[in-house]
Amino acid sequence: MTSAIAQTTATFSALKCKECGAEYELKASHVCEFCFGPLEVTYDYNALRRSVTRESIQAGPNSIWRYKAFLPVATDNPIDVGTGMTPLVKANRLARRLGLKNLYIKNDAVNMPTLSFKDRVVSVALTRARELGFTTVSCASTGNLANSTAAIAAHAGLDCCVFIPADLEAGKVLGTLIYGPTVMAVEGNYDQVNRLCCEVANTYGWGFVNINLRPYYSEGSKTLGYEVAEQLGWQLPDHIVAPLASGSLFTKIYKGFQEFVQVGLVDEKKVRFSGAQAEGCSPIAQAYREDRDFIKPVKPSTIAKSIAIGNPADGVYALDIARKTNGNIESVNDAEIIEGIKLLAETEGIFTETAGGTTVAVLKKLVEAGKIDPEETTVVYITGNGLKTQEAVQGYIGEPLTIEAKLDSFERAIERARTLDRLDWQPVLV
Amino acid sequence: MTSAIAQTTATFSALKCKECGAEYELKASHVCEFCFGPLEVTYDYNALRRSVTRESIQAGPNSIWRYKAFLPVATDNPIDVGTGMTPLVKANRLARRLGLKNLYIKNDAVNMPTLSFKDRVVSVALTRARELGFTTVSCASTGNLANSTAAIAAHAGLDCCVFIPADLEAGKVLGTLIYGPTVMAVEGNYDQVNRLCCEVANTYGWGFVNINLRPYYSEGSKTLGYEVAEQLGWQLPDHIVAPLASGSLFTKIYKGFQEFVQVGLVDEKKVRFSGAQAEGCSPIAQAYREDRDFIKPVKPSTIAKSIAIGNPADGVYALDIARKTNGNIESVNDAEIIEGIKLLAETEGIFTETAGGTTVAVLKKLVEAGKIDPEETTVVYITGNGLKTQEAVQGYIGEPLTIEAKLDSFERAIERARTLDRLDWQPVLV
Ligand SMILES: [Zn+2]
Ligand SMILES: [Zn+2]
Repeated sequence: MTSAIAQTTATFSALKCKECGAEYELKASHVCEFCFGPLEVTYDYNALRRSVTRESIQAGPNSIWRYKAFLPVATDNPIDVGTGMTPLVKANRLARRLGLKNLYIKNDAVNMPTLSFKDRVVSVALTRARELGFTTVSCASTGNLANSTAAIAAHAGLDCCVFIPADLEAGKVLGTLIYGPTVMAVEGNYDQVNRLCCEVANTYGWGFVNINLRPYYSEGSKTLGYEVAEQLGWQLPDHIVAPLASGSLFTKIYKGFQEFVQVGLVDEKKVRFSGAQAEGCSPIAQAYREDRDFIKPVKPSTIAKSIAIGNPADGVYALDIARKTNGNIESVNDAEIIEGIKLLAETEGIFTETAGGTTVAVLKKLVEAGKIDPEETTVVYITGNGLKTQEAVQGYIGEPLTIEAKLDSFERAIERARTLDRLDWQPVLV
Repeated sequence: MTSAIAQTTATFSALKCKECGAEYELKASHVCEFCFGPLEVTYDYNALRRSVTRESIQAGPNSIWRYKAFLPVATDNPIDVGTGMTPLVKANRLARRLGLKNLYIKNDAVNMPTLSFKDRVVSVALTRARELGFTTVSCASTGNLANSTAAIAAHAGLDCCVFIPADLEAGKVLGTLIYGPTVMAVEGNYDQVNRLCCEVANTYGWGFVNINLRPYYSEGSKTLGYEVAEQLGWQLPDHIVAPLASGSLFTKIYKGFQEFVQVGLVDEKKVRFSGAQAEGCSPIAQAYREDRDFIKPVKPSTIAKSIAIGNPADGVYALDIARKTNGNIESVNDAEIIEGIKLLAETEGIFTETAGGTTVAVLKKLVEAGKIDPEETTVVYITGNGLKTQEAVQGYIGEPLTIEAKLDSFERAIERARTLDRLDWQPVLV
């Protein structure tokens, strides 16, 4: 599964402060020494415009590494476990239910190997970690990132230590432990875990994917922009709806679209960016509603733990993008999140976790408020799998009808279900 | 996500009895009226040889539907939710651990949409069901098939009623209910569920994917052969190891390889076929060991429920293939199955369910017995995801180290882990 792209000249050139523009060497570093702004990777877009074509991308591997020229790694041998190129599903039944006409689901609930979009950022971060000489990798995680870091580190043979909040969903803990990393369960919420990890990162020579490797790591999310553009036949959508946790995903989809325009792979288009938060952790939605350009940190309290970041690092950038693209940022409560999970499963056969339920519920809310035009080509980003947060829907999905292994027991159950209105269709007899 | 292959002339021609050769119309039917043998779909291979090339396949969609010419559906608009084209991972770390040199994992643990190979057979069965005019679809299932049927029926807007044994793993029940089908939990094992479903299939006008639609359904597994051949660069492997439940998967991988040879897409090669069963349900392995050519049904008792079929419909065909290809059929106990799950996760970052643990454990056993040559290109089929059978490994994977959100608490935990030998690597200080 190694990259088929023969590209020996890296096109990424520096780390640059998003605030003051100061430039830095391409080391493991994420904060500007002058203004404490976040660092971002820059590229030589003129070189990219000359060297990359639709055809050269399509000739690459069926994974995020087909876009290697736009990713901050130099090696010709990235860690490729099939991450990315998840389906863009035309969601006709969900669209009809909501009154939309051109709705698509970008389904990272089946991303490889650990069923969330985090596999994208981790594949990039660990490839970069390896080429920077790290042998131990680590992360602060709300669960999905821990799954992904542990799995991809196992595949690559890197030592791994992950930090999670102690109250995480059982499926996410088990889905990390199985790969054999060291797991630290921290008594505290994600923001506290993250602060501890910053201290550890300063003391140990470890590659923390979302701390000292963050500039490389976060670039992996751009592939969610590239893939949608390619899968729509090399054009941009009219409107996207994505979950907001730290805000990074949102800004990187935006960057991905911009880059494809800049190097001439797609035509320019104003894409509307709408963001989704859970009411129990909605600092960005609150700032949007109150017309603030700064974020007031909150203490998370929601079932949507994977996006429950009370102090979102890229919140202000997400706010800016939603405003300048004429998008929206909206929040929904836990009951609406569960309904969102069920709605997507029943109409499209896609079982997402609470983050995806949040995004679908926000989509519905925006449509009902007239904030999405039925004609718009709208792409909803589903970022994780429902099997990891089973407790969130347990108790809201009904139960099987228990029967004996006999035809008459089955027929009584069918009859009972019809009487109780639990059967919304008519059994056809031969 | 609809097929890009423009093919209006179907290449499948009849249903044919595997025992007596009697031919039937292409209806919903699975048993020979004369000899009660199973029916199988036949194709016009001369037409296929003329019309299909490597290039025409590669120009198709990135799913099983790139092989539509070899599948028993006539429509140009199959149900395509991105099923298939899962990664073939070069498993270098697992290979090194076992002393092999050319080992690959075909990873259907990340198949779309429901994370098992069943999405392949169900995509084909429901596409065929729709073109035969069925509006209600059904199945007898050990769990994965119920997940898949419910999800793909939801996407396609078909009514759905599934039958499962009442003692199924929680994740598989929830992973079915979420899509909103009617679920019948039958008090009994899979073989009893299956018998009941045969009765229901005779009474109701439903399309049972693995009963009256079985000849179409089972053809979907051939794509596991096609994909491996294509992903190895249009050549066959030397040896494959796959789980045996009903035996169908095994025989269809074989048929897939044969067909590719027959139409000239790959060179002929004798591929060795080895099958894996759980000791607690190993009627095929027992027949193999005792040199019998018939199967004695057994009562299943194993954690590997998804492959626990005591009376395997295609068992004798699987036996025959293992013997004539110089393969093997081997079984492993529940403890070995759990070790197999952990071994694959720790070396390759792939979390599989009990069926996959069985297959990896059998691979290990065959290598240790000298029955797989280290030089052979060996492909191991992983058919389902570990998140669905979490209870199987719970209690065998250790626990997180719980700490306070403070650096000294973390450092004490690391020190403790080293003392207790729970850390097999050395933390690097800056
Ligand atoms: Zn700065
Ligand atoms: Zn016959």
